[in-house]
Amino acid sequence: MEPSTVDLRALMEPSSVAVVGASSTPGKTGYIILKGMMDHGYKGRIYPINPKESEILGLRAFQNVNAISDPVDLVVIAVPFRGVKDVIKDSVENRAKFGLIVTAGFSEIGDLGANEEREITEIARNGGMRLLGPNSIGMVNKSVDLVISIVPFKTWKNGGISVVAQTGIFAGALAANVIDTQNVGLGKSIDIGNRCDLTEQPLLEYFAEDEHTNVVGLHMEGIREGRSLLEASKKVSLKKPIVVLKTGRSEVGAKAAASHTGSLAGDDIVADAAFRQAGLIRANTLQEMIDWLKVFDYQPTPKSGRVGIVTLSGALGVIASDMASNVGMKLAEIEDSTKNEIQKEIMPAWPVRNPADIWVSLGLEPERSHRIALKKMIEDPNVDSLIVLLLALQPARCDMAKVFKEAVDAAPSKPIVAGMMGAKEIEQEWFDALEGIGIPSYKGSDCAERATSAMGALTTYGSILQSKRQS
Amino acid sequence: MEPSTVDLRALMEPSSVAVVGASSTPGKTGYIILKGMMDHGYKGRIYPINPKESEILGLRAFQNVNAISDPVDLVVIAVPFRGVKDVIKDSVENRAKFGLIVTAGFSEIGDLGANEEREITEIARNGGMRLLGPNSIGMVNKSVDLVISIVPFKTWKNGGISVVAQTGIFAGALAANVIDTQNVGLGKSIDIGNRCDLTEQPLLEYFAEDEHTNVVGLHMEGIREGRSLLEASKKVSLKKPIVVLKTGRSEVGAKAAASHTGSLAGDDIVADAAFRQAGLIRANTLQEMIDWLKVFDYQPTPKSGRVGIVTLSGALGVIASDMASNVGMKLAEIEDSTKNEIQKEIMPAWPVRNPADIWVSLGLEPERSHRIALKKMIEDPNVDSLIVLLLALQPARCDMAKVFKEAVDAAPSKPIVAGMMGAKEIEQEWFDALEGIGIPSYKGSDCAERATSAMGALTTYGSILQSKRQS
Repeated sequence: MEPSTVDLRALMEPSSVAVVGASSTPGKTGYIILKGMMDHGYKGRIYPINPKESEILGLRAFQNVNAISDPVDLVVIAVPFRGVKDVIKDSVENRAKFGLIVTAGFSEIGDLGANEEREITEIARNGGMRLLGPNSIGMVNKSVDLVISIVPFKTWKNGGISVVAQTGIFAGALAANVIDTQNVGLGKSIDIGNRCDLTEQPLLEYFAEDEHTNVVGLHMEGIREGRSLLEASKKVSLKKPIVVLKTGRSEVGAKAAASHTGSLAGDDIVADAAFRQAGLIRANTLQEMIDWLKVFDYQPTPKSGRVGIVTLSGALGVIASDMASNVGMKLAEIEDSTKNEIQKEIMPAWPVRNPADIWVSLGLEPERSHRIALKKMIEDPNVDSLIVLLLALQPARCDMAKVFKEAVDAAPSKPIVAGMMGAKEIEQEWFDALEGIGIPSYKGSDCAERATSAMGALTTYGSILQSKRQS
Repeated sequence: MEPSTVDLRALMEPSSVAVVGASSTPGKTGYIILKGMMDHGYKGRIYPINPKESEILGLRAFQNVNAISDPVDLVVIAVPFRGVKDVIKDSVENRAKFGLIVTAGFSEIGDLGANEEREITEIARNGGMRLLGPNSIGMVNKSVDLVISIVPFKTWKNGGISVVAQTGIFAGALAANVIDTQNVGLGKSIDIGNRCDLTEQPLLEYFAEDEHTNVVGLHMEGIREGRSLLEASKKVSLKKPIVVLKTGRSEVGAKAAASHTGSLAGDDIVADAAFRQAGLIRANTLQEMIDWLKVFDYQPTPKSGRVGIVTLSGALGVIASDMASNVGMKLAEIEDSTKNEIQKEIMPAWPVRNPADIWVSLGLEPERSHRIALKKMIEDPNVDSLIVLLLALQPARCDMAKVFKEAVDAAPSKPIVAGMMGAKEIEQEWFDALEGIGIPSYKGSDCAERATSAMGALTTYGSILQSKRQS
């Protein structure tokens, strides 16, 4: 049985880390990990472990973990499969607190690997050491500048998003993608791999108390120790929103998951209901997960689901309207005064509804027409949240940050998201300007869907909080 | 009643175009349209019409349409609402063949506009002139370098995709987005606006016979003359695949559509069934539509739905597997010889399945391992199509065009698509390289979903063709 809480401080904020398999040969995993830790500025003690070297990258190297006199907080294990067991034994002798196994070839491969995985887990647990992995790509805690990764990263942006994932995709390619294309930062990113010992639960509990975490992302291919996970989620989700992405949904996907991280995928519909009960917000795709994490990191939760939409494109307004009701919102019934003021100021003789389609104002003082439409809509007492859909076209170009800033100031407690589609250069200009002032922005041909879906997730979390606090 | 076919040559390939409301004042709609036609190199005769000018942009201007001695093929009408009726009358007097009305304020606004719309339509039809619009953003036929648009475009890329849309979003912002971010080109893009006279049907029929059109995109907010549209689609879809995006799905979305293009949205489930029967392939989002148009433009149709997947990321493999069965494919049961050869050559001791997860080969000769995995998988007799999911990370960097070229050469009749996620720079490098050799590519965090969905659309069209040809 998993104890209800594990103190993860020595794992997450270690004062010393041993890297077993450390190497001075560029390209080798043991080099990439060690070099990365040093380059990203980790300030604790680092012990490279390699029986063939006395010094690696300028640091004194040790023969093995038990050659280190003091107990090590965290042992990173990056040796070939056959060597892992001995490293665990050495680490137990050192009274090391945590092990992070990046080596693969365990339960994801079949019975042989599964047996070995059980054996090393038992040795560690009996010796008082807890394990993360195996088959983990690494872990990052930017709060203490700790970046342990078998994939090299030149930069890593700190921020309020903490992710625990069952696969390296998050600490690897997805992190790279987020770092390159988003303004938000992943403060923590932990790949728990095959979960031979530590599961998601203690990490969620750690994030709940972490002052730097605004929102938690959870990726799973299969569920292990489901009941305790859901119990923990119920508590954690009252403090921090948790966005979950569970893949391995279909039967074939589940088979693929078994050979990827040794997971049993379980019944997806059951999972869906259980997630909802535990207050988890379920994303369907990786992109949706990033989109939602961003909106939670940036924006307040709306009072309820009455959404206002301002759009320069009637077509995008239709798409957002279509989607709103499927994601827990309804179009706000705006006041006549709101309609009349927008109409009078920017498009006389043109009817104003919600969505407020301001297409006919195109080319005529775009800054003024956007500013008036956004401000009037968000000030309407029946509007809880605002979706703005922009056409990134030359005749609409203006200082969008200024336009949105005025809407934010008019109603700081109401969340706003923006979508933008059109010329790439203008899309990017507005994306940077708006994300720079904390407006979650979605660009490209699916901007309306993504903006609406993100606002829907925020709205769902608001209703979860309300129902939980009442019960 | 709509006649079953209309000869659209004078509309699509006009030898003369009058622009009513033409202006020499930059920024004005009549300037943007005229300047755009000249800049994009239209070679037919252009008649600027403006009672106050004798010359506009170096061209002789006319007082009104009936001052032109020969009948004009196409009259573009860009005057204020109140002036439209007189222009129609003048055009009928000139015996003009087609009118394209960009002016808005008709049936999308309410009863008053709807009455006016009916009236001008009657005048035109009685005078033997057919109308496109009103409330149209324009039309493009790049085969004759004709770009008529109220939104200025610096460039326009020719290509095998022809689009007919009920809203300016396609000829405007979406076209800008496609031009900036995709390698494919929109050869034709027609905004039919409120459809007062000409509907989608004759345009579909024109595209069916057009040698430059490989695939047709159809956007609708509402359906008009549904029966004849579906009958036409049934015939056209045997010649060219038709991807349809119908928005205005929900009740609220339908309301928004009514005020956008004056459409009645109709029952969405009925529409869905009717589309399927007519051989239309229905996309759910704008992005999906672009993704699918691209795959049809580039790739052959697979024999059946047995898909092979090669991935450097187990997680992306799981996502693609999950999705495959929902979009009409099944994972191919690959031969033992395929498995053994991939295993032997690139990852000894690691089991190979479909999806073939080649993660453990990361960093070890990426070009070689990708090349062998792709080639062996696509050569397998049980594989009809191939999805490749790449991790855009430094250790995997290699000449991807070369890798894919070899797979294409090994089985030219089997379609391939690629997804790529990771560092932005490498994503873009591979995207450009692969699209350059005709491999539809999808980059970013939803690459696995998008690649799988595109291959699903291609597979669906294959099965439509088979069942139709049998019946």
